Amino acid sequence: MSIITLTTDFGTDSPYVAAMKGTILSIAPTATIVDITHAIPPQDVREGAVVLENIAHRFPDGTIHVVVVDPGVGTERAIVYAKIGGHHFIAPDNGVLSRVAKRTAPVEVIRLENTEYWLDKVSSTFHGRDIMAPVAAHLSLGIEPSRFGPPHGELGQLEWPNAVRRQDRVEGVVLKVDSFGNLITNITADMLVGQPTDGRACVICSIYETWGIYQTYGDQPRGTLIALIGSDGCIELSIVGESAAERLGIQVGVPVIVAWE
Amino acid sequence: MSIITLTTDFGTDSPYVAAMKGTILSIAPTATIVDITHAIPPQDVREGAVVLENIAHRFPDGTIHVVVVDPGVGTERAIVYAKIGGHHFIAPDNGVLSRVAKRTAPVEVIRLENTEYWLDKVSSTFHGRDIMAPVAAHLSLGIEPSRFGPPHGELGQLEWPNAVRRQDRVEGVVLKVDSFGNLITNITADMLVGQPTDGRACVICSIYETWGIYQTYGDQPRGTLIALIGSDGCIELSIVGESAAERLGIQVGVPVIVAWE
Amino acid sequence: MSIITLTTDFGTDSPYVAAMKGTILSIAPTATIVDITHAIPPQDVREGAVVLENIAHRFPDGTIHVVVVDPGVGTERAIVYAKIGGHHFIAPDNGVLSRVAKRTAPVEVIRLENTEYWLDKVSSTFHGRDIMAPVAAHLSLGIEPSRFGPPHGELGQLEWPNAVRRQDRVEGVVLKVDSFGNLITNITADMLVGQPTDGRACVICSIYETWGIYQTYGDQPRGTLIALIGSDGCIELSIVGESAAERLGIQVGVPVIVAWE
Repeated sequence: MSIITLTTDFGTDSPYVAAMKGTILSIAPTATIVDITHAIPPQDVREGAVVLENIAHRFPDGTIHVVVVDPGVGTERAIVYAKIGGHHFIAPDNGVLSRVAKRTAPVEVIRLENTEYWLDKVSSTFHGRDIMAPVAAHLSLGIEPSRFGPPHGELGQLEWPNAVRRQDRVEGVVLKVDSFGNLITNITADMLVGQPTDGRACVICSIYETWGIYQTYGDQPRGTLIALIGSDGCIELSIVGESAAERLGIQVGVPVIVAWE
Repeated sequence: MSIITLTTDFGTDSPYVAAMKGTILSIAPTATIVDITHAIPPQDVREGAVVLENIAHRFPDGTIHVVVVDPGVGTERAIVYAKIGGHHFIAPDNGVLSRVAKRTAPVEVIRLENTEYWLDKVSSTFHGRDIMAPVAAHLSLGIEPSRFGPPHGELGQLEWPNAVRRQDRVEGVVLKVDSFGNLITNITADMLVGQPTDGRACVICSIYETWGIYQTYGDQPRGTLIALIGSDGCIELSIVGESAAERLGIQVGVPVIVAWE
Repeated sequence: MSIITLTTDFGTDSPYVAAMKGTILSIAPTATIVDITHAIPPQDVREGAVVLENIAHRFPDGTIHVVVVDPGVGTERAIVYAKIGGHHFIAPDNGVLSRVAKRTAPVEVIRLENTEYWLDKVSSTFHGRDIMAPVAAHLSLGIEPSRFGPPHGELGQLEWPNAVRRQDRVEGVVLKVDSFGNLITNITADMLVGQPTDGRACVICSIYETWGIYQTYGDQPRGTLIALIGSDGCIELSIVGESAAERLGIQVGVPVIVAWE
């Protein structure tokens, strides 16, 4: 009983996802396949990396995560298998694994080169279906990762903005906008330890500011801008009952500051 | 082999759904998880209640339905387990279960308070993942509901408009717009018994009217406004091959009358 | 262990899909249900036929494909079971199976008439749930197709434009726009055999033309219009990193020509 997750930029409506599922089930008919999301914006490797970091570790050890956000499909970029923190990842080596690999160092990275575990006919434009899906299926059946190809060396990195703690403030950015329009930052709760979270704390984003860091949305009336510790342990800005992203016109990358009087 | 369904307002594209699935599978790796929908409009408890009423009973007895439409997450509202008509429900007690509980009285209602069955770390903003998902998983493994907390008393209610039968007419409202744009009312076929459904019956909604109650869409040419008995046994208004909601500008709550000459 | 796939025009957000899944699982609790897509445009039988042709054969032999794109629901149109190339199909006989049946001739076609395998109560507007889902579930349990009804004769056809090879060119049309906005034609790679694919080949669509047939998107810079052999073996037109359909304003049915100097 193996679990295989899929994360892609195909779009939730796309039948290409089912082409991958059919391929997996043709090799491993009892695999449990779970969608993480197919709504990564097209070719947005960074968003894929953030989603994986937030979600993958929620699955049981031994889960196989297949990630197809692959603007370089068919070019020289490698496709890799990586074992990271008890989980298996199969993805193009374009940085999409860089955030999970930053949390926990990979213990094994293999470059997928052994065509024996690929579909017989490999297209140039859909390696998710023709290479990654069949390799994931064979892995779920117990094939040793070393059979898939040679060791690969270091995984590709992307530049990620770090939140910085200064004397009287923490400086970060909006890292992600969730489906409710909440603005999720890269400032973790850990970075605020020892500082007040009551009305003496001010959270500033663009021309907006709000005082105090709350526990949950229901703590304030509908329409109020609040800061709170989100479900993944990071500071987020939210408008109760509405979309902060839409109302404030804020996007990924905008600076956020937590400051104290 | 247990079936766990998920109904949320996270949005179909949201990876938060997968966070719940990963949590469930970490505890109950062989659970069968089925999405009912994740497209309940944000915080729309009423729409969640209508969808559950229409869909939940289609699943086999013993199914566990987890419902996360939870505008009060992290506040004092209770999260409950309820056994209703052979099915298990786990939801915030905010009225989202009020329509299924109106059909069949709950035989057991428990308030989820025993943290032993929750995730070790519970956020203030995502009880779907941290409380409801793990409790559902433990329930699917055979844990007795009474272990999850104390009896809860009455489930929260919402006001629902009743269709009313008068001497020469039945008065109701649009209860739901489906994905084809059909306007589904709260007038059941039972309320029309003994009355003609041919050209003597007139169905009125806003400034529109149509004569006769048909069996199916194909009975009239494309573009025709018709009334028919929908697949859940209620009168619906439909424009053949098009979206009645868009064409007529009608929304949930608009009055509908069936009258006879 | 049976696999049942679902292809519908209900919309990805629709809970009607779950009504079918609940019905299937009530009869066959261990069935593996996989969504192909629920985003076929409403009543678009042709798009359903193209998607099925591209995806169904990726699943293992013995898979049961249920297709609910059914503008004639409740009218005289037949619902059929068809065995085609080792796969089982259950669909209205409105041409939605015409492309899979063109690839491989059906070996058995049955008209679903035996109400013993339907839900007890059959609506006039949702035969996907009330007839097709339960028949698929019973089929997955090993019921012989001949029990479902009498032989049906020929499957309904639709007119499909054929690509034509002439002396100095191949003439086809855009058959499908995928979720990335790529324009996928009905011109297969086989039709180009013996001709150059380098800069001497010209691909023309509406007022646009591009020279050379590439292997993959990454072969040219972002924003470039290119022609390539897509993942299903047909010529497609793509703008690297963008949506060709949006940028060029091209839709299904527009002529495409591959010509040589």
